[in-house]
Order: sequence, then C-alpha cells, then structure tokens
Amino acid sequence: MRDIYHDELDEIGQKLEDMTQLVQDAMERATNALLDGDLAGAERVISEDAHIDALREELNDRTFQIIARQQPVATDLRVLVASTHLVIDLERMGDLALHVAKVARMRFPEIAVPEEVRDVISQMGSVALSLVGKVTAVIKGRDIALAQAIEAEDDSMDALHRKLFTLLLSPNWSHGIESAIDMTLLGRYYERYADHAVAIARQVVYIVTGKMPEPLGSGSGFTQFSG
Amino acid sequence: MRDIYHDELDEIGQKLEDMTQLVQDAMERATNALLDGDLAGAERVISEDAHIDALREELNDRTFQIIARQQPVATDLRVLVASTHLVIDLERMGDLALHVAKVARMRFPEIAVPEEVRDVISQMGSVALSLVGKVTAVIKGRDIALAQAIEAEDDSMDALHRKLFTLLLSPNWSHGIESAIDMTLLGRYYERYADHAVAIARQVVYIVTGKMPEPLGSGSGFTQFSG
Repeated sequence: MRDIYHDELDEIGQKLEDMTQLVQDAMERATNALLDGDLAGAERVISEDAHIDALREELNDRTFQIIARQQPVATDLRVLVASTHLVIDLERMGDLALHVAKVARMRFPEIAVPEEVRDVISQMGSVALSLVGKVTAVIKGRDIALAQAIEAEDDSMDALHRKLFTLLLSPNWSHGIESAIDMTLLGRYYERYADHAVAIARQVVYIVTGKMPEPLGSGSGFTQFSG
Repeated sequence: MRDIYHDELDEIGQKLEDMTQLVQDAMERATNALLDGDLAGAERVISEDAHIDALREELNDRTFQIIARQQPVATDLRVLVASTHLVIDLERMGDLALHVAKVARMRFPEIAVPEEVRDVISQMGSVALSLVGKVTAVIKGRDIALAQAIEAEDDSMDALHRKLFTLLLSPNWSHGIESAIDMTLLGRYYERYADHAVAIARQVVYIVTGKMPEPLGSGSGFTQFSG
C-alpha cells in the first residue's frame, strides 16, 4: 500500500494538473470571446478567475504543510518547492487570460480585433493553447524532451508577435491609436502567457535533473517589436 | 555566539537586500537612459541584468540547501520558501528595467519619450524607485505597516498609467502609432514593476503573520486603460 505521504504528493500533482486545465480553459474562452465579441464568455472568464486564485492558495498551504510535517529531502523537496513556483506561473497565466477577456468586454458590442489582425491574434491564441496543453503533459510525465519542444514553440509566438507589430505599423492600418494600444497589450498578454509556459517547463526540467536548463536560443525571448 | 544556521539565514536576508538594490539601480539607470537618450546607460542596464540572474540562481541554490540540510519548521521554513518567491519577483523587476533600457537603445539617437508624456513617464519612474526603496525597508524590517503603504503607493502608479493613456488618445497626439506602441509598452513595464513590489510586500506580510493579506482596493490593480 502507498503511504499517506506519497498520496499527498500525488494529490499535489493532481491539483497542479487541475489548475493547468483551468488556465487553459480560461485562455480558450477568452480568445473566443475576443474574436467573436462574446460578452457572456468574457464575463465567465472574469468571474472564474477567482477559482484559479483559490486553487493557488490551497496548493500553497498544502505544499507548505507537507514540507513542514514530512521534512522531505532531495527530489521530493525539489518537487515541492518547485510546485510553489509553478503555481505562481499558473496563476499569472490565469490573470493574462482575464486581461484578454477584459479587452473583449471593454469593446463590446464592437469586436476589439480588426479584420487585418484577426488571423495573427487567432494564431497567438492557438499557440498559447498548444503550449499549455504540452505543459499539462510535462507536469504529468516530467518529460524533458517535451519541455524543450515548449521552448521551441515559444519562438513561433515571438514570430507572431513581430508580425502583429508589422501590421500595426503598416500604412494601411486604419483603426487609429486606441485599437493599436489594444492590439499592443493583447500581443503582450499572449506573449507573456507563453513565457510562463516556458518557465513551467524549465521548472520541470529542474525537478527531474536538479539543474536549471540554460535558455535555448536568445534566452529572454522577444521583448520589443524591433529591439 | 550565533550558530551557523542563523548566520546562513542572515546571509539569505543580506543577499535579498543586495538583489533589491541591483533591481533599484537598474530601474533608475534605465529611466534616466530613457529620458536622456543615453545609449551607454541603457547598454549598462542590459549587460548588468546577468548579475541579477546570477544572484537569483545563487540565492535559490542556497535556500534549497538550507531547507534540505536544516529541515526548518514554522517561521524559518516560511521565510525560506517565501524568499524563493521574492527572488522570482526581483528577477522579473530586473527584466522590466531591462525592457525599459531596450526601448531607450532601440530609439537612440532619438529620445523615445515625446515631450507631452515626459512628465508622466518620469513620475512613473519615480514611483517605481520609491516603491522598491520601501521594499528594501520591508525586507530589512519585516514592517507590515510599510507593506501596506506600498499597496497604497501602487494606486498612484495606476493613476499615472491612466493619465498616460489619456495623453496617447488625445487629439493632440502627433507622434503616430509607433511611438504610441512604445509608450503603451513602457507604461506596462512600469506598472508591472510596481505590481511585483506589491507582491514582495505581500510575501513579507505572509512571512510575519503566516497569512496572505487580502488585496487592498480593487485587488488585481489596474489592467486596462478603460476597462
């Protein structure tokens, strides 16, 4: 029979998966609400963010209690401390989905995203969902190869982000400053969501190997549209 | 005489203060470089970010080793786990200073910030520095009242952020889309820097009281310029 301690560790893992699923659902709904001008969908993401925050508190309390009570060492301790970090990234991903939903709500009954940039924003949403889907698999399987695939996929988010800025700066852009500000912030939200997915993948590599991986490629990623 | 364990805890505290100082210096230099179009200053912030990242790794390794070796409980354990979270916030604040420096570098030899928004960006820089100065005092003194003052001061950052968007959307804005994108991103960088200062203050309250404080006021802060 399993002991209570290992059941507790498994429960932490399960709750991390649950939180990842909530964060994925939030971004999927937020992106759909944004592209369709769906107020009810946006409101749902906004109100359900409280669940994600509550799950963070619950996970942090449990993890802390396990460390204090069981005094784990080596890998178990690494898993537990790292899980408190994953939770911070996941909560932040939930916040970013919330921000996307707020743009949708703010512009309702208009659709916030102009036709010219609809494709690129839609693709940023797809990459975000693909990344967080891989994150779930990484958390489940502690799969280092998949963690590296996440870093590579983050590069395609950066490419989409650059493409977005090219469209905003095109002489054909006819939607003015306000819409350009919306699109700039949306681009940043999707990019940061992807960055947090990468951070989670790196934490899992750390759990498995005991060493933080060096960043792939340019490291801190794409931060400025032409810088 | 102090024992080795408490000397180690003090050393963690000292290194957290050092990291906070580096993050404050980075934002001060980045803001000056931005407002003066100072390429050398910007380059210095960009190259010195590696020190902040290295300090993060060192702090995380030490903290982890102390937890594994000393098996602390109660407050000491709380301090150590929370310090791994502070380090994440501090590193991110360093990244945000780096992003500000990159805007300065990208627009050199021009000055990125147009005259109309110079005041508001300069004030955002001042509030950012004031916040991180208070963070140092909070880390040193574990002062709950000061932690609350940080949350209140963050509201003035939000007010400046709204003012920035008002100026960008004014009919008098004559600097086009590209500059509006720069200013939107800069506003976001300063706002997030402030948010991380608040997160650190909240962690310190958690260390001292054992409970995470409820957010003051609107909670997740100002996220959208009219949302």
